[in-house]
Amino acid sequence: MDIEQYRILPNTIVKLEDFPTRRDEQANKKKTISKLMPKNIRAMAQLQEKLYAENRHALLIVLQAMDAAGKDGAIKHVMTGLNLQGTHVVSFKQPSSEELDHDYLWRISKAVPRRGEIGIFNRSHYEEVIVTRIHNLVANQQIPVELIGEDIWKKRYRQMNNFEQYLYENGIHTVKIYLNLSREEQRERLLSRIKEPDKNWKFSSGDVQERKYWNQYMTAYEELMAATSTPHSPWYCVPADNKWFTRYIISEIVKQQLEAIDPQFPILAQEEMDLLSECRSLLEEDN
Amino acid sequence: MDIEQYRILPNTIVKLEDFPTRRDEQANKKKTISKLMPKNIRAMAQLQEKLYAENRHALLIVLQAMDAAGKDGAIKHVMTGLNLQGTHVVSFKQPSSEELDHDYLWRISKAVPRRGEIGIFNRSHYEEVIVTRIHNLVANQQIPVELIGEDIWKKRYRQMNNFEQYLYENGIHTVKIYLNLSREEQRERLLSRIKEPDKNWKFSSGDVQERKYWNQYMTAYEELMAATSTPHSPWYCVPADNKWFTRYIISEIVKQQLEAIDPQFPILAQEEMDLLSECRSLLEEDN
Repeated sequence: MDIEQYRILPNTIVKLEDFPTRRDEQANKKKTISKLMPKNIRAMAQLQEKLYAENRHALLIVLQAMDAAGKDGAIKHVMTGLNLQGTHVVSFKQPSSEELDHDYLWRISKAVPRRGEIGIFNRSHYEEVIVTRIHNLVANQQIPVELIGEDIWKKRYRQMNNFEQYLYENGIHTVKIYLNLSREEQRERLLSRIKEPDKNWKFSSGDVQERKYWNQYMTAYEELMAATSTPHSPWYCVPADNKWFTRYIISEIVKQQLEAIDPQFPILAQEEMDLLSECRSLLEEDN
Repeated sequence: MDIEQYRILPNTIVKLEDFPTRRDEQANKKKTISKLMPKNIRAMAQLQEKLYAENRHALLIVLQAMDAAGKDGAIKHVMTGLNLQGTHVVSFKQPSSEELDHDYLWRISKAVPRRGEIGIFNRSHYEEVIVTRIHNLVANQQIPVELIGEDIWKKRYRQMNNFEQYLYENGIHTVKIYLNLSREEQRERLLSRIKEPDKNWKFSSGDVQERKYWNQYMTAYEELMAATSTPHSPWYCVPADNKWFTRYIISEIVKQQLEAIDPQFPILAQEEMDLLSECRSLLEEDN
């Protein structure tokens, strides 16, 4: 599977309308769900075991999207085959007053996966250049007013790039995924949350209000993805109008990223091997 | 008091032997202890109250030094006049296995002071380019081996500069202080820890072993201070052979840094002022 077509190239101008929101015409739904996905999940689970055993690298997956784009479903379907010991999901909601009293990466840094682990951020520090920007929330935050200039978003892109470069140079690989949902498909999904009683709990009237800002969101995403897709911490813009296809692409991205990390079971030094032999003898004689 | 003479200028070659370890000849011990220090501590306490009330900026003081240079004493004597609510000291010791499983700034980021607070780091992330370097501890850490190149220290300087720039751009000001102790004065102090029973608990034979690496420590400090003293997060190299003088200089640095931040009591908006008047009337009538 070629995922390159969904990768945002560094230093390019991003136009979201150039990226598909619908599935690839060649993709076969039945085959993808019954064959390709299970195969990918098995491969991911094997790679995760090595990642955990090696205990050197970590993988951080950042998920960002408009409401109803399918982040929760993707986490559920793509990550469920993985060993829970070694995987964690952190959802970043509206910051608490304790969090607002700190620098904005404070809650993010704490949640970065430890070596050997896969961490999934359901929303992330990127909200600080999306919702914070669109709703001018920075004015309500505790950041000193003299530090809030017109260049604050550009500064934050640089800060985020530096942060992710630091992580990369210390063995923590970041992959960022934007679920590219069409405005029409969002309307359908929000409507179904109203019409279907089992989905009512997912509906929030705020989501409908946010649709007014759709174009501003698109512009914010275009700008941030252009500025923060780097060779070591790329953005992928994944079609989100067909859930089964979205999940498959995400599984491909995660699998290929783990393959690139190429974790290995640790090879024991000779003295440790000797110790193993010794222990084996002791256990075999002990009966 | 002119503290500029102790500041490391950005992009200069640092030779520690060019910096004094002894007190300024003009300084008067009695006057410093009885008049100047209490005056500075009062000024710091007043500024701290404003910092806390304003709740926008934070001050991070990093203390680094050779053993027995007087970090603990400096924290005790300089900071004790400050309100405990709004001040905290974090001592960074040998990393735990949990900490080693994370990126090296993980435990540092978590401990960065919140807005309105003064945080003191007793040792810091800089140990990662000092003791880690001199004793080649990076090989025992969990960082992937392919990331451990000859340029790892230069990369870490950049990472630390980026980290402190990010903090600065978000209202957290970092000041770094190196206590410049002479090798001879360290010998005297370690000897007194052996000779005086009340000080025995402070003695560690490891400190004597470390003296063998004195020159390597000096070189590491010279290199890191040259690389990481920036206009927004400077290093100060403070004479440490006379404790009273060291403490006075530190109090000057902290006081002047707080003056530069220039925190202000928040001015209430008119509607809040009206609310205050209303509450006042209610309280005055309530008897």
